[in-house]
Amino acid sequence: MNFKLVLRIAGRTLLVEAIAMVLPLAVCFLYREDPAPFLYTIPLLLAVGGGLSLIRSNDHLFPREGFCAVALTWLLVAAAGALPFYFCGYFNTYIDCFFEAVSGFTTTGASILTAVEPLPKGILFWRSFMHWLGGMGVLVLAIALLPALGSRMLQLVKAESPGPVVSKLVPKARQSSKILYSIYCGMTLVEILVLRLVGMPWYDSVVNSFAIAGTGGFAVRNTSIGAYGSPAIEIACTVFMLLFSINFALYFLVLSGKVRQALRSDELRFFLVVVVGSIVLITVNIWPMYSGADALRHAAFQVSSIISTTGFASTNFDLWPEFSRFLLLLLMFIGACAGSTGGAIKCSRLLLMFRSIRREIRQIIHPREVHVVKLDGHVVDEDTLHSVHIFIAAYILITFLAVLLVSLDNFSFGTNFSAVVSCIGNVGPGLEGVGPMSSYAAYSGFSKLVLSLCMIIGRLEVLPVMVLFSASAWKRS
Amino acid sequence: MNFKLVLRIAGRTLLVEAIAMVLPLAVCFLYREDPAPFLYTIPLLLAVGGGLSLIRSNDHLFPREGFCAVALTWLLVAAAGALPFYFCGYFNTYIDCFFEAVSGFTTTGASILTAVEPLPKGILFWRSFMHWLGGMGVLVLAIALLPALGSRMLQLVKAESPGPVVSKLVPKARQSSKILYSIYCGMTLVEILVLRLVGMPWYDSVVNSFAIAGTGGFAVRNTSIGAYGSPAIEIACTVFMLLFSINFALYFLVLSGKVRQALRSDELRFFLVVVVGSIVLITVNIWPMYSGADALRHAAFQVSSIISTTGFASTNFDLWPEFSRFLLLLLMFIGACAGSTGGAIKCSRLLLMFRSIRREIRQIIHPREVHVVKLDGHVVDEDTLHSVHIFIAAYILITFLAVLLVSLDNFSFGTNFSAVVSCIGNVGPGLEGVGPMSSYAAYSGFSKLVLSLCMIIGRLEVLPVMVLFSASAWKRS
Repeated sequence: MNFKLVLRIAGRTLLVEAIAMVLPLAVCFLYREDPAPFLYTIPLLLAVGGGLSLIRSNDHLFPREGFCAVALTWLLVAAAGALPFYFCGYFNTYIDCFFEAVSGFTTTGASILTAVEPLPKGILFWRSFMHWLGGMGVLVLAIALLPALGSRMLQLVKAESPGPVVSKLVPKARQSSKILYSIYCGMTLVEILVLRLVGMPWYDSVVNSFAIAGTGGFAVRNTSIGAYGSPAIEIACTVFMLLFSINFALYFLVLSGKVRQALRSDELRFFLVVVVGSIVLITVNIWPMYSGADALRHAAFQVSSIISTTGFASTNFDLWPEFSRFLLLLLMFIGACAGSTGGAIKCSRLLLMFRSIRREIRQIIHPREVHVVKLDGHVVDEDTLHSVHIFIAAYILITFLAVLLVSLDNFSFGTNFSAVVSCIGNVGPGLEGVGPMSSYAAYSGFSKLVLSLCMIIGRLEVLPVMVLFSASAWKRS
Repeated sequence: MNFKLVLRIAGRTLLVEAIAMVLPLAVCFLYREDPAPFLYTIPLLLAVGGGLSLIRSNDHLFPREGFCAVALTWLLVAAAGALPFYFCGYFNTYIDCFFEAVSGFTTTGASILTAVEPLPKGILFWRSFMHWLGGMGVLVLAIALLPALGSRMLQLVKAESPGPVVSKLVPKARQSSKILYSIYCGMTLVEILVLRLVGMPWYDSVVNSFAIAGTGGFAVRNTSIGAYGSPAIEIACTVFMLLFSINFALYFLVLSGKVRQALRSDELRFFLVVVVGSIVLITVNIWPMYSGADALRHAAFQVSSIISTTGFASTNFDLWPEFSRFLLLLLMFIGACAGSTGGAIKCSRLLLMFRSIRREIRQIIHPREVHVVKLDGHVVDEDTLHSVHIFIAAYILITFLAVLLVSLDNFSFGTNFSAVVSCIGNVGPGLEGVGPMSSYAAYSGFSKLVLSLCMIIGRLEVLPVMVLFSASAWKRS
């Protein structure tokens, strides 16, 4: 293990984080709030990050170093990002602050706060800004801003890449991340303007856009997006939540004039079928609870919010019938498209799993024919399929293991199961005790750490964290 | 599709079922009960079964025919086995009777009856006898008793075989099934005697032995095995539930003097680690609820009952702390060893899945080395691993889909989830609304059919039923 290099990468990322905190600091000054939480934290990060990034190391970056660097950096960045929460005095323990920061950077949006409105605007800004930073990955940012580490970064991108089929947009990793970064910033800007136009105040437009762009879901009102009481705002949010669930590579295709190719994406079609199907089923199921089109609007908002793994609420969906509640729980497993800012298993993996099962059945029926699994017209090689199966198996295994651990707190099965599924899927709210109008506050410190780890495992696509915890990764070779 | 041959196989199996019903008929006479339910059913089955088995067909049995024959035969046998329930007048609807019969033959033990004690002894005998018949598979029985179909039966055995690695004991399928059959009968006889010796009445010893041998779990007392109030009986049941969870091929090895080879089985060791680990964890967790060693006895009984997928209860484990309850739910997923009468995913598959995940992690850490997955010292080929992954993925997929369907009845998430996991794993009781002291009676007819299908899917190892429902299996080719 090239431990020095891993520390140097982490150090540089802490420097980026310190620079990022200037923005919430400015918000503090703008609203004449106490800037102390950020004034304490920024110099600390500059000192530690600067020190670590001065470490000399050789440049050999094996995959295991890449995976470990990613996992350790996320832990460190979250631990540092929790400091302003700790200094502001609105949180009970440092574990609560850490949970909230992990939830922020992993774009989960699970909160230990039940009432957010009493908090200072600067703190809430930082909380939502973490979503935005996390959305494209702290390390993709690091590649774009601190290119000092050069070509070895491709290894890191591989470790961080969401989804099984990451088509490089252009040959150079640095160039690719700049393009993604531009699309991300551009869409966020458009969203801020649209939300302002449909009647959201400026401050709320900015922070909610951060939360939606990163598919995070931290709200700045106690009752989430439902608090604005505006169908126009809910519809605008629905549209943007869906837009940020789609593979960004498709936007690059659209920008390059290859609209048809983008629309032929199997994953996009699968995603849209699931979204439309779920909206129809839930609308029918909750129809008696609402007057007319309200059922459709709430169903569309909630399906988009959950499958994009944002986690905003337009209403308390925990009060819906069991069928709708469980369908939402299933969507928490499915998640967004690969290459988006969304989390969970992702549509492309599920699609490949379904097609593998179908192939197995066909193989039984027609044993003498050779059957292949295709995606976007191309044959998917067996190694990729194998990785997909391993991913899904490990994902479900970790889910069950985490539910067992948090069960020690003796909350209901529905609470524990939905909490873990929501955290590992980077969604945010769950059902029952962790429903959209509740919070994770009641869990013990141990459970909060387990759930924090779930969020990181989910965000980092499972395997990097498993490598980190594997004994043989730490042996000197 | 060679439909005629499939019908002929089903017909012969109905004849076996008619013969099997002579035993409960005799019990009716012994206890001077109304024999009408069986006197109506037996001639009906003889007529229909005899008619179907006269159908002339060619002998080509492709795998898809094998799979379809197995799935259709189970449906037909359960539909016929439900008739005595229907005629006895203690059940409300035919769907309830069908559910109970499917639960019987699939060795699940999920019941729509809350109080079983008012039922006639002949009917209860038939209910438990179904477990015993189901235990070794209706079709393994058919091979042993009706060898008319000859060598094509190997295809059927393949479709029915529980678990991924079925080592044929001896070259001929018929010979193998006779050996298994003898071990099964012998162990059942020993069990009847042991249960009688520890103080269970004769009738109860026989029917409970049927239920344990088949890892079924239908009880003849309202509060299951707990009703006897005897630690000795509970300990004896615990031992036999574990014995019937072990791969029968290992008993064949022991009988052949290869004791060491049997003890070296990876699956057996994995199974024992899970059993002992779960007993320890649950004992510690429920210690404050019981006085002294009672906690250990109940933990051992319940762990053995659930992992063997029997489903008996020595106490109402639904009142245990959430940690123990969820651990039992996990055991419902795991299930017994391959080649036993138990159900669920099975230890060997899970073991192979764990080792595949471990290999993937090692491959990342040491990318230049070649890593293989081994079982019992032998390299497992990639096709087997692929089948294991597909099986587990399909198993979990069907579980979630079934939970969604039964959610329409609007019971709690814990009720629905545990009901489906318990049914597809052929366990019996679940948690909350379907806990060990409750029943499945409250579910709608539709949900009962969904749960019945889950039981058959679980018992037939998922794929045969998926082939049956696949459109392309029905095309003429």
